[in-house]
Amino acid sequence: MRNLTIATLGSHSALQILKGAKDEGFKNLVICTPERLSLYRSYDNFIDEVIEIDSWKNFPKLEKELVKKNCIIIPHGSFVAYLGLEENKKMKVPYFGNKQVLDWEEDRKMQRYWMEEAKIKVPRQFKKGDKINRPVIVKSYGAAGGKGYFMARNQKEFDKKIQTYTAKRFMVQEYIIGVPIYFHFFFSPLTNKMEFMSVDKRYETNVDSLGRIPALSQRGLKIEPTFEVVGNIPLTVRESMLAEVMNMSDRVVTVSQKLMPPKGLFGPFCLEAIITSSEEIYVIEISARIVAGTNCFINGSPYTYLLYDEPMSTGRRIAREIKLAIQKNKLNSILD
Amino acid sequence: MRNLTIATLGSHSALQILKGAKDEGFKNLVICTPERLSLYRSYDNFIDEVIEIDSWKNFPKLEKELVKKNCIIIPHGSFVAYLGLEENKKMKVPYFGNKQVLDWEEDRKMQRYWMEEAKIKVPRQFKKGDKINRPVIVKSYGAAGGKGYFMARNQKEFDKKIQTYTAKRFMVQEYIIGVPIYFHFFFSPLTNKMEFMSVDKRYETNVDSLGRIPALSQRGLKIEPTFEVVGNIPLTVRESMLAEVMNMSDRVVTVSQKLMPPKGLFGPFCLEAIITSSEEIYVIEISARIVAGTNCFINGSPYTYLLYDEPMSTGRRIAREIKLAIQKNKLNSILD
Amino acid sequence: MRNLTIATLGSHSALQILKGAKDEGFKNLVICTPERLSLYRSYDNFIDEVIEIDSWKNFPKLEKELVKKNCIIIPHGSFVAYLGLEENKKMKVPYFGNKQVLDWEEDRKMQRYWMEEAKIKVPRQFKKGDKINRPVIVKSYGAAGGKGYFMARNQKEFDKKIQTYTAKRFMVQEYIIGVPIYFHFFFSPLTNKMEFMSVDKRYETNVDSLGRIPALSQRGLKIEPTFEVVGNIPLTVRESMLAEVMNMSDRVVTVSQKLMPPKGLFGPFCLEAIITSSEEIYVIEISARIVAGTNCFINGSPYTYLLYDEPMSTGRRIAREIKLAIQKNKLNSILD
Repeated sequence: MRNLTIATLGSHSALQILKGAKDEGFKNLVICTPERLSLYRSYDNFIDEVIEIDSWKNFPKLEKELVKKNCIIIPHGSFVAYLGLEENKKMKVPYFGNKQVLDWEEDRKMQRYWMEEAKIKVPRQFKKGDKINRPVIVKSYGAAGGKGYFMARNQKEFDKKIQTYTAKRFMVQEYIIGVPIYFHFFFSPLTNKMEFMSVDKRYETNVDSLGRIPALSQRGLKIEPTFEVVGNIPLTVRESMLAEVMNMSDRVVTVSQKLMPPKGLFGPFCLEAIITSSEEIYVIEISARIVAGTNCFINGSPYTYLLYDEPMSTGRRIAREIKLAIQKNKLNSILD
Repeated sequence: MRNLTIATLGSHSALQILKGAKDEGFKNLVICTPERLSLYRSYDNFIDEVIEIDSWKNFPKLEKELVKKNCIIIPHGSFVAYLGLEENKKMKVPYFGNKQVLDWEEDRKMQRYWMEEAKIKVPRQFKKGDKINRPVIVKSYGAAGGKGYFMARNQKEFDKKIQTYTAKRFMVQEYIIGVPIYFHFFFSPLTNKMEFMSVDKRYETNVDSLGRIPALSQRGLKIEPTFEVVGNIPLTVRESMLAEVMNMSDRVVTVSQKLMPPKGLFGPFCLEAIITSSEEIYVIEISARIVAGTNCFINGSPYTYLLYDEPMSTGRRIAREIKLAIQKNKLNSILD
Repeated sequence: MRNLTIATLGSHSALQILKGAKDEGFKNLVICTPERLSLYRSYDNFIDEVIEIDSWKNFPKLEKELVKKNCIIIPHGSFVAYLGLEENKKMKVPYFGNKQVLDWEEDRKMQRYWMEEAKIKVPRQFKKGDKINRPVIVKSYGAAGGKGYFMARNQKEFDKKIQTYTAKRFMVQEYIIGVPIYFHFFFSPLTNKMEFMSVDKRYETNVDSLGRIPALSQRGLKIEPTFEVVGNIPLTVRESMLAEVMNMSDRVVTVSQKLMPPKGLFGPFCLEAIITSSEEIYVIEISARIVAGTNCFINGSPYTYLLYDEPMSTGRRIAREIKLAIQKNKLNSILD
């Protein structure tokens, strides 16, 4: 264990991942662009090494060094945005997770198939040419942090807004009326156990500012709602909903073992749901890795406190899984 | 103490209650319906026994076993919904709390009298035939989790909506414009001290989704607000408001000792308030037992940290009260 | 250290400050008005002394006693409201912070100059006679807790509302469409390090209730939005935004050392920001002392957990700075 270094890219949930690695006894390092050097260097109480990179395009050149340093890379939500999907798949540094999952996560059609196979309710999806007969939300593929989403109430509004839309690949999804809620899980292939980690909701600009503007004033302002994520708010969920949500997460993992065999999905993931007024749970997206909402719980969540005596973040849980794999001599089963 | 088992029903805040019991050194058990077996069994790190029940109707048959096991039942917000008010009162297993409180909590008129006697501001209530001259919220009796509530701006809207309303017993309450906030207390009859535990607000579908939809779009969608609770969000409250809120809670307990003599209300309870723009505090409801909002603080709250060196949840605080009662040989004073 | 007593006024974040003082090994005392005596006395597990004061006007008479008791006063957001700006500046009891900052914080024009010098984006400000060509928010000077704010969409609405406005000194600020977010920092002049402590958003009545009322119903109710702060909600922020926010806070401190020489701003402060949909960060206000939003984190925040092994509140961090100053024999450098 002393020879291994937990490494990640400087963004998203890197602080949590690196702190967790240190708490579990690993060396760690972070790779970041120049403008973030001072941020990550200021946490020298738990970050061992900060490697500067001029541009993410140069990441492949770094790989040899990372391999030499016995790094294990922990992916997070900025990996695809920074490196691209193909670069992630080609990465030679040992990678925590199953890379087959990347394709299933990125392609919205494949993701949808995965959810449907797992008997998860998903919003209706509109294909090209379908008549838009209800409110929809239009999401670009691989969009990071809600950027480039828009809402349309009907065909007319859709037709108008799509004219100035710049995304090449996008999805038209039924807009479910209900509250968003993000469920964080950790599935351990070593213990074969699903752990409920935490819950959050996103804090999005400007859509979360609308409610503070009186309806009358909104009329004058003609504000178009946008969905850029700026932060996260901690939540807990009704305990009577937990059993159902845990079952859903089990099915998602079970199906993944068929679709992305043999390992399937493991480690941290998130079901991003809308709960309707009839308490139906629609999953609008799955994030098959650590999500930024877990940053609310770097010092532990109400739910991880049920499972662990120490403050257990999702980042730390990853490091612990790696530690456990070393102890069981099963490191290969969790790396790709 | 070793002979006692803390028991509860599998829902609401059971995980918190059971974890708290274990942390205080008690054995514990949970009774749950089949679809939740796997949830509660998965927490075998702190739950000693999971008893399956086919239907809550069969609960009375279980009682003999629970008595034999020296159980103390900890009630929570699902008890009346699952077992019915009468079954709660008839329960033969030792019960944490004062069962007289159940009637005062369930009947909205009695609850209102209690609050008024305690000099608590309450929203105006409309009796049958009263002219509805302001916005109102209509709440069914004993409604769990906000189900079956509706809003009406005026007599006309009320008349229209009431035609399709199915609740038999309901209350028409003035809709107070202001923000909801839920104050959690614990009153210990053993130390005679009121403890301020935590604060939350509810996360309700679909009413908390409205603000994210532009006023203009809402018009097209004709969404009727509903109030189903799906989760809770942690809060803190202005410190300058704390003194007033603590005084309110003291009065509520003092009055309860007259209305439900001699023990009155003790243990955990919640004042559910609306704070107006003139900073008046209206209590819209009292929950005379542990509330689900305390689930935000299973690992302790900012306020319990002021009182305890350990992470003190409301569930754990209940177990500690029982422990204290055993030590003082006063178990009877907190059981019914 | 044993001779020193940490003292503050009974309001705002006093509980946090006093608990932090105790946790760091100091004696402490709180001065409060009669109606709050029972609140602060009930925390006798960590508050050593509660001094009653009939009226804040009599505070100067208390000063001799406080000096004799070797008190260090920790200011918070109620100091100017309770004692007045001049009384704060004249205070003879050793005071944690740089009193020069008080003028720069209170005067909105000076505050604006400070922010602009630090290259911080600020909303456009309208001078008397300026044509109001966009939505504005009108804020009274020194307004505590959002009281006396109002919104106007345009010149016409402004002209109408200003007629009944009672504040003598006020500011007309562009209303930035975006989400509010409050960043809490601690700058240590002893270690020369900026620490990111936590993030919150305010919970304001009645403006945060608007979103729960359907647009159609709002029309009938004619609700005027008000901004009284009743509480705070914990947040975390996108990690990719942290670097920028940390740079902003560094610049604010650097500039302050020129404007309020030589010490400038140190200790706890808060940048109160609006994040727009293009992810621009506007600072609408700086609070140059501990803010009430830190009360969400009396038991530590996700961010302080990155820096400290113990639950580190902002209040405790202040006490630790004083302890560090004593150890370094530099107490004078942090007192005024």
